Amino acid sequence: MLLYEGKAKQVYSTENENEYVVYYKDDATAFNGEKKASIASKGILNNKICTIMFETLEKAGIKTHFIKALSDREQLVKKVTILPLEVIIRNITAGSFCKRYGVEEGIVLDKPIFEMSYKNDEYGDPLINDDHAVALKLATQEEIDYIRAQTLKINEIMKEFFLKMDLKLVDFKLEFGKDADGNIILADEISPDTCRLWDVNTNEKLDKDRFRRDLGDLVQGYEEVLSRMNK
Amino acid sequence: MLLYEGKAKQVYSTENENEYVVYYKDDATAFNGEKKASIASKGILNNKICTIMFETLEKAGIKTHFIKALSDREQLVKKVTILPLEVIIRNITAGSFCKRYGVEEGIVLDKPIFEMSYKNDEYGDPLINDDHAVALKLATQEEIDYIRAQTLKINEIMKEFFLKMDLKLVDFKLEFGKDADGNIILADEISPDTCRLWDVNTNEKLDKDRFRRDLGDLVQGYEEVLSRMNK
Repeated sequence: MLLYEGKAKQVYSTENENEYVVYYKDDATAFNGEKKASIASKGILNNKICTIMFETLEKAGIKTHFIKALSDREQLVKKVTILPLEVIIRNITAGSFCKRYGVEEGIVLDKPIFEMSYKNDEYGDPLINDDHAVALKLATQEEIDYIRAQTLKINEIMKEFFLKMDLKLVDFKLEFGKDADGNIILADEISPDTCRLWDVNTNEKLDKDRFRRDLGDLVQGYEEVLSRMNK
Repeated sequence: MLLYEGKAKQVYSTENENEYVVYYKDDATAFNGEKKASIASKGILNNKICTIMFETLEKAGIKTHFIKALSDREQLVKKVTILPLEVIIRNITAGSFCKRYGVEEGIVLDKPIFEMSYKNDEYGDPLINDDHAVALKLATQEEIDYIRAQTLKINEIMKEFFLKMDLKLVDFKLEFGKDADGNIILADEISPDTCRLWDVNTNEKLDKDRFRRDLGDLVQGYEEVLSRMNK
């Protein structure tokens, strides 16, 4: 049964009450839904890339919702309740950070920026700090501290992972969920839809900015990421 | 010599290189300058209210830039370099917090919210978190920690002070500066231009929201605040 339909994914219930199936669609959206398209095979590429990312993180000791890939477009995952937080790490300036504060793109930051948005389409996923998250009852301070620590760990693992394939991890978005036992684990997806990835030598963008900013064929970029992962 | 002209104040140099004179104007602006007016005697009221506030805080052990009132509209202050941060405390939901996150006005928060904006008119004083402030080189993490601790102390002193005169301190904005020795001290102003103050019994707004939202005569509200302070 379809439980939830997002911009790029569907979530289905299964016969096991503790498991869901995630289905990766070909839809692409940007700017809070203002720009839309269907891009053939994007869902397949994201499912494959995301599967490798979750397997890599699990191997490195990070708890995630991922159980296994079921098909080209489907993953079996643990049932979680998603926290209404978008968690972002920035290693290099880009995107909304540059726009919001009038900063040039491409500046390498001395240390990663951790930021959170309130996952709320109606209000445009507005930026929040820890106190806002607690006041809005999105998470407790202890939960935020845990999520921050996990996210910084994940950043170190992912940065090293991508650097080996000559990719700079510019920034990325994560979502966390609570499982049946109340544990907070990594959920949602990790893909070029949710990470900015630039070629180390040419700075070519191999992520969703190709779609957002018309910087070239999206599928070609995602295929390049996947092929470097499979080398 | 006029050194700086802001929306509601002018700052002049003096013969003493470590001292400035602040002059309180009658100008009122709101919504990042979109709404403007000149309101006779607002500057006088703000100077008087602010003088009492700085004297109250100094007595309670808070270091401020305030030296003494010179006239109806003028204060002698220590020379500081203002940090490009607007520091906000919220005790009760109101204003931009409600607008940004879709929250009702008037909810008493379990604990005060501390938030910071990047003082930058061109970008609309955008919200920042600690990591943003450090990355934008607005302040160091140690400076932010100090400012947060001082601001929470100031909140406790001010809440108690206003409650004695049957006023709720809903929220307020502070600015800090660095003196010649590099010490961070409270600067700018504290007045109904920078604090939301509601009557404890009627919730009547006695602050700049009267101007922003056409809720009644501004001068009458500020005079009510001053007269309660002088009781």
